[in-house]
Amino acid sequence: MYYLGVDLGGTNIKAALVNEEGVILQEASRPTRLPRPAEAVCDDISEMCAELAAGQEVAGIGVGCPGTIDGGIVRFSNNLDWHDFAMGPYLEARTHLPVYLANDANAAALGEALAGCAKGADSAVILTLGTGVGGGVVLNGKLLTGYTGAAAEPGHMVITDDPNAPLCTCGRRGCLEALASATALIRMTREAMEAHPESRLHEVAARDGVNGRTVFDAAALGDETAKAVVEQYTHALAVGIANLINIFFPEVVGLSGGVANQGENLLAPLREAVAPMVFGDAYAEKHTRITTCQLGYRAGVIGAALLARHQA
Amino acid sequence: MYYLGVDLGGTNIKAALVNEEGVILQEASRPTRLPRPAEAVCDDISEMCAELAAGQEVAGIGVGCPGTIDGGIVRFSNNLDWHDFAMGPYLEARTHLPVYLANDANAAALGEALAGCAKGADSAVILTLGTGVGGGVVLNGKLLTGYTGAAAEPGHMVITDDPNAPLCTCGRRGCLEALASATALIRMTREAMEAHPESRLHEVAARDGVNGRTVFDAAALGDETAKAVVEQYTHALAVGIANLINIFFPEVVGLSGGVANQGENLLAPLREAVAPMVFGDAYAEKHTRITTCQLGYRAGVIGAALLARHQA
Repeated sequence: MYYLGVDLGGTNIKAALVNEEGVILQEASRPTRLPRPAEAVCDDISEMCAELAAGQEVAGIGVGCPGTIDGGIVRFSNNLDWHDFAMGPYLEARTHLPVYLANDANAAALGEALAGCAKGADSAVILTLGTGVGGGVVLNGKLLTGYTGAAAEPGHMVITDDPNAPLCTCGRRGCLEALASATALIRMTREAMEAHPESRLHEVAARDGVNGRTVFDAAALGDETAKAVVEQYTHALAVGIANLINIFFPEVVGLSGGVANQGENLLAPLREAVAPMVFGDAYAEKHTRITTCQLGYRAGVIGAALLARHQA
Repeated sequence: MYYLGVDLGGTNIKAALVNEEGVILQEASRPTRLPRPAEAVCDDISEMCAELAAGQEVAGIGVGCPGTIDGGIVRFSNNLDWHDFAMGPYLEARTHLPVYLANDANAAALGEALAGCAKGADSAVILTLGTGVGGGVVLNGKLLTGYTGAAAEPGHMVITDDPNAPLCTCGRRGCLEALASATALIRMTREAMEAHPESRLHEVAARDGVNGRTVFDAAALGDETAKAVVEQYTHALAVGIANLINIFFPEVVGLSGGVANQGENLLAPLREAVAPMVFGDAYAEKHTRITTCQLGYRAGVIGAALLARHQA
């Protein structure tokens, strides 16, 4: 039996035919072409699904969608400009298949938890360090979703009440997202460059602009300013991860997004910073594994398909 | 069918015969009489269980025990001075009943979630504002326990990286426990009294010493210093609760412990402080209910019995 996974983004619609193990058999992609009516986007999705499903036994469709999802309803999606759109019923009517929705970051987290970096683990917290800090929590193979229709938003955990802490997109100060996203890292890099004209950050940035790699590259050249930024960033991320470990004590914490591509450059100091912050770690027999995600952009379609598999 | 619930504390062993609904039919209590061997304490527990079970159909025993619990093993209990004690198997051999262990704060949280303030709710986060900040998370009727053998420790979530933040018992600074426990409130009260000899806190404290009620009583008299302490305490607690809501979006947050006895004095300003900190609250159809716990000290035995009920 197969499942269709759809990852609906503001730029592209990605879809895949996926088996029960989370292995992709066929993929497709189309531009989302916003702005246009939600129904038109869904008609494209159902066409893509029909093409991928042709001649296959498909049991259900999972869709990862940006925004707040409540059952089959997209309550609010800033990216898509959708409000209270009954996406699930609409797609079911067009495809004649059961449709399951999840927030896109949550669907990707489910993919990593079940078929990627936490495959076989009993629980995982996945954090995406991108424009924001998104993620999802998977306990015993199921996404954690809340009573209020929203899913875990670990990026909006406040980790400092410093009145000078950077403002978060949510309007508060000191959220993990405002301190540990790629956006935050880039902001910190720019601030450090301004304060330190002598730093080799300028030399690295001259090559391909300031991005999430800049400080890591300059730190590798021995630049002290860059090392300080890496340390400050790692500390904030470590506090956030330790808080989540102290709440969930998961088997795996998986990091994705651009910053996670640093691999051991990031993971080694991060693990060292997290360990003393974990409650009772010295007495624990088992310890949370902190690692990077493995599925890349495919986590979204795989996770969406596995959502359908587990709910169908 | 009935269940036995045991709440093992450093001072007393409490036990009760409980029905499937979480209603107590009979209770018993004995002093723990520490220090003595773990086996001797368990012999008392099994005697109490035998007395309560006499003539009844009992399906299992649940035990709430301070410390880190891993299956039937008490890995480490500071209060009891137990290390890697196989309490479950020992009690099963004596009582000939299945025995289920949980951390005591977790057992009490389960009691409140299933039979107290969150009865009928799909999810609850229970926080105990006492000497420390303990608690538990109950999702779909089950306690959240982690891979590492530990359960949720929301008290050890860091909410500020202020280097002058008070030191927590765990060795870190800025934990919720160090800012929102009754101990923290009493420390803040004493500091405010020292800084403000004119405050009516002195007058209130002269009656029955400084405790978790002192600032609330003085604030009710209109004392500005006391009001400022209440506001500072409420803010820290609100940040911790909002973080937990943003992670779990639970149906209920229940507060227990001495400070929670303030009821609406605490809850009204707390709800007001939490609301703007909840991610996407403006778009949500449903909102987390913040309330006080209802079962008092009986939450422990009821929760332990219901643990047995749900696992037996």
